[in-house]
Amino acid sequence: MTGASKDVVRAALLVIGDEILSGRTKDKNIGFLADHLTAIGIQLKEVRIVPDEEDKIVAGLDDLRHAYDYVFTTGGIGPTHDDITADAIAKAFGVSIGVDPRAVAMMLPHYEARGLEFTPARQRMARIPAGAELIENSVSKAPGFMIGNVVVMAGVPNIMQAMVLAVTPRLATGKKMLSATVTVRRPESELAELFGNVQRDFPDVPMGSYPFNDDQGYGSNLVLRSTDASRLHAAHEALQQQLKAAGLKT
Amino acid sequence: MTGASKDVVRAALLVIGDEILSGRTKDKNIGFLADHLTAIGIQLKEVRIVPDEEDKIVAGLDDLRHAYDYVFTTGGIGPTHDDITADAIAKAFGVSIGVDPRAVAMMLPHYEARGLEFTPARQRMARIPAGAELIENSVSKAPGFMIGNVVVMAGVPNIMQAMVLAVTPRLATGKKMLSATVTVRRPESELAELFGNVQRDFPDVPMGSYPFNDDQGYGSNLVLRSTDASRLHAAHEALQQQLKAAGLKT
Repeated sequence: MTGASKDVVRAALLVIGDEILSGRTKDKNIGFLADHLTAIGIQLKEVRIVPDEEDKIVAGLDDLRHAYDYVFTTGGIGPTHDDITADAIAKAFGVSIGVDPRAVAMMLPHYEARGLEFTPARQRMARIPAGAELIENSVSKAPGFMIGNVVVMAGVPNIMQAMVLAVTPRLATGKKMLSATVTVRRPESELAELFGNVQRDFPDVPMGSYPFNDDQGYGSNLVLRSTDASRLHAAHEALQQQLKAAGLKT
Repeated sequence: MTGASKDVVRAALLVIGDEILSGRTKDKNIGFLADHLTAIGIQLKEVRIVPDEEDKIVAGLDDLRHAYDYVFTTGGIGPTHDDITADAIAKAFGVSIGVDPRAVAMMLPHYEARGLEFTPARQRMARIPAGAELIENSVSKAPGFMIGNVVVMAGVPNIMQAMVLAVTPRLATGKKMLSATVTVRRPESELAELFGNVQRDFPDVPMGSYPFNDDQGYGSNLVLRSTDASRLHAAHEALQQQLKAAGLKT
């Protein structure tokens, strides 16, 4: 992908962790990555959450890495026995895995400065599949990595965020998805016909309606999305005009 | 499933909506459903988030409904053109879909009481695949439905939550997953070897380590899970004893 120029770059996210599926931990990474990818011109098209089970990780990864330009993973790269992501990724790619001297070089000064031993558990976090590029971890040093089109990151949100920012300059990006929102203080059902007509007039501008309910009653956010600013503008104008003509918005 | 008695009942969740993937809306349904299913004795084993695209919804649904006892879906059952979940589900099951008189009966009094017309847009929310059972919506009346092993719910969190509670008595449940947590104020890497040994002694009790970092420094939550209270207790005792013997916890 690197250096390639495409209009649309599509990605998936594979969240790895029993703790998300049991409800014990509430995921914060999906929303962060969705926002970040949208901002840099990559479209997040699918997310999967799977348990810490090798066959589930490998199956999810293989489905996604062949279907999208990039796959991001979060979770399962720590030092404990339930951290099996790096091994599962090596297995999916059919490559070996071992302690990587580049990872050791990133981690060792951090431990030495604190007078801590580089124990087997800490060395476990330096195990990287053969052929991977490392991703810097400015928070706690143990790196993530990128192999093929797969970006492997920690699950702890502040570490994951640092890794996303570190890897971003290496990613190919496409046209940014732009959006316009029209908020109408009417329930969706009163806008549906008009909104559907505008969608038919602009089939290339995907439109979605998102209802809300607050202390002022029902309302709808009508969201228009396009990578083409002029088409987005035209659709936005048409929607506002028709809402005004119908007496639904001043 | 209904009436069946199984030790383990497993489920998946299919979240449907462009707005989650774009980052515009932050999902609140995954965490709620994860907590609820854990509490009633159903294990959530996989989550997928897909866009409002029929082929993606059908493919995700077909993967999941054959692999798990139940599939829950959220999103895409409102009155606007981007709400295509009910049609996609009918397509996946190969059944017809039309305005369901039972759904109309649930919705009509709500509109009549407010002097509102039962417009085509509102009738769209009464379109239900043939053979489905309805799920009551105590918030805004337009129902969800259950067809085969698939439970179809709204995406708006308070409506989704009402539907989850309404459908719960109809679900077969298994043994409840119990858990015990030991919090240790040490980084994971200092506990990993000991914790791995305890896991080896209790291979039937899945154990996970979840690091955290607060103003008191690094810490680890060691979580043990089992449907068998006595095995969970034994593993919990063994872990605490070994942590004490190693001087890692008082």
